[in-house]
Amino acid sequence: MGSQAFTDRLPGKPSLAGFLRALKYDRHGLVTVVAQDAGNGQVLMLAHANRKALERSLKTGFMHYYSRSRKKLWKKGEESGHVQQLVSLDVDCDGDALLARVRQAKGACHLGFRSCFSARADKRGRVRIVGRKVFAPGQAYGK
Amino acid sequence: MGSQAFTDRLPGKPSLAGFLRALKYDRHGLVTVVAQDAGNGQVLMLAHANRKALERSLKTGFMHYYSRSRKKLWKKGEESGHVQQLVSLDVDCDGDALLARVRQAKGACHLGFRSCFSARADKRGRVRIVGRKVFAPGQAYGK
Repeated sequence: MGSQAFTDRLPGKPSLAGFLRALKYDRHGLVTVVAQDAGNGQVLMLAHANRKALERSLKTGFMHYYSRSRKKLWKKGEESGHVQQLVSLDVDCDGDALLARVRQAKGACHLGFRSCFSARADKRGRVRIVGRKVFAPGQAYGK
Repeated sequence: MGSQAFTDRLPGKPSLAGFLRALKYDRHGLVTVVAQDAGNGQVLMLAHANRKALERSLKTGFMHYYSRSRKKLWKKGEESGHVQQLVSLDVDCDGDALLARVRQAKGACHLGFRSCFSARADKRGRVRIVGRKVFAPGQAYGK
């Protein structure tokens, strides 16, 4: 609770570099990004971004992330075509998490769902699929 | 893309223990949790939970998290009274992130905002406050 708020770390004169510097990256140089459908508010996915990915997202208007498993920067939808157009980017109070409101082409989830959060658990541990498939993953990713 | 989907790791016979075991915890035993207002869809905060925190959340119906800075399990609102009543819990395709739809008492952010994501950045790095204060943080936390 006592940590300095993100906005206190911003430079006096606003700049993209100053904004990116004020964020709190983890030891791998990453922040967490929640992508939310700007239209209906559905939470689509959670991913990570480094400074370069954020810079590209803001400059191009399309979401870029950093893949921890593939260890590289990627543009969302570069393979599938399911790009995310950035509508607004909000920072949390600590500056280590971001909320990207986006216009999502087709679906965010590589399994074919609109949202990656498509399995609902109840208190007894029963899980049921609540998401709806919007594309066939085999066709979008070709493998 | 090739990693096994969360639902494939679930046990044949559903149980709370089996569900919690199927999640993909990081090396600190944590998963990431996005808390979303079940009413209006506003994303409220991002936090982490260990297995015990998730178990308590599901059993009590109130969100519990694990604080990485204080290194302890905590009930959201235990100090401020701004508890989160769990409405539904969704798991993402990888099983390492959860979406908790909640009924948030007053505000989620310790700065007094309804949501922790209350600072909006534009492509030039200018940041403006878009959230609204719903309580005075000094009164809620007593320091």
